[in-house]
Amino acid sequence: MDRLYFEDFAPGEIVEYGDMEVAAEAIVAYARQFDPQPFHLDEAAARATVAGGLIASGWHTAAMLMRMSCDGFLNRSASQGGPGVEELDWVKPVRPGDRLRVRRTTLGARASRSRPAVGLVEFLFEVVNQNAEIVMTQKNAVFVLRRPVDEAAS
Amino acid sequence: MDRLYFEDFAPGEIVEYGDMEVAAEAIVAYARQFDPQPFHLDEAAARATVAGGLIASGWHTAAMLMRMSCDGFLNRSASQGGPGVEELDWVKPVRPGDRLRVRRTTLGARASRSRPAVGLVEFLFEVVNQNAEIVMTQKNAVFVLRRPVDEAAS
Repeated sequence: MDRLYFEDFAPGEIVEYGDMEVAAEAIVAYARQFDPQPFHLDEAAARATVAGGLIASGWHTAAMLMRMSCDGFLNRSASQGGPGVEELDWVKPVRPGDRLRVRRTTLGARASRSRPAVGLVEFLFEVVNQNAEIVMTQKNAVFVLRRPVDEAAS
Repeated sequence: MDRLYFEDFAPGEIVEYGDMEVAAEAIVAYARQFDPQPFHLDEAAARATVAGGLIASGWHTAAMLMRMSCDGFLNRSASQGGPGVEELDWVKPVRPGDRLRVRRTTLGARASRSRPAVGLVEFLFEVVNQNAEIVMTQKNAVFVLRRPVDEAAS
């Protein structure tokens, strides 16, 4: 597939990608390492909490979004990483057996004043489960190289 | 140690906690699973990129912040989880051998209108490296149970 440059991200475009099944073991493994709260660690303990059962750490869901985005488009793009996140909402719990995918909307794209070789592309990511429910939304920008002049001319 | 309730988070309070050394192996292990971009996967490949060497995934740094916060105060608090993140900035790269800690500022605290047993505490988290440089900042709120009446009266 062709490498994606700044010019390939058209504001308004919506694409979907990803298919990640969330195993209970993966939820617990993530939580043991990074977010050891009772509702992420153990089904029985989680039932007694506000979560009502085992739920994935929100940071695990964000990590799964990142992985689906790498596989879905970032790793074949000229991405230079991002400066941060503008907004991240955990809308619904992610539970064992859920299957996640991503709907990505390109919100905007602008050239960088300080780095002429690079543009900044602004995305909205919606993580959607098997019931078409949005479980997480995230807005953030990514630096992407502009298409080299020799390629544009060819 | 006493359990921390909503009333224990005073706006303006600043506390520090955490001491996490970032091993190259941990950077690569995280990246393999969640963020397989060249500058997170391999020192030699990373040298050829804009990063100039291996750097941790920003999501890995956010995960390390979460772990330090669990150990530092969340797991002895009556936390009920958070609704999301308002702002997250990756200010400087995190590299192998860095040692991270957290400076937490309590920005505000307010009761929940819909859930009288719960309050929302707003935090600024700054992740600081061994050179006292801020590498990441994050603003987000956490739901925390209010102190039970019988405890408050005792």
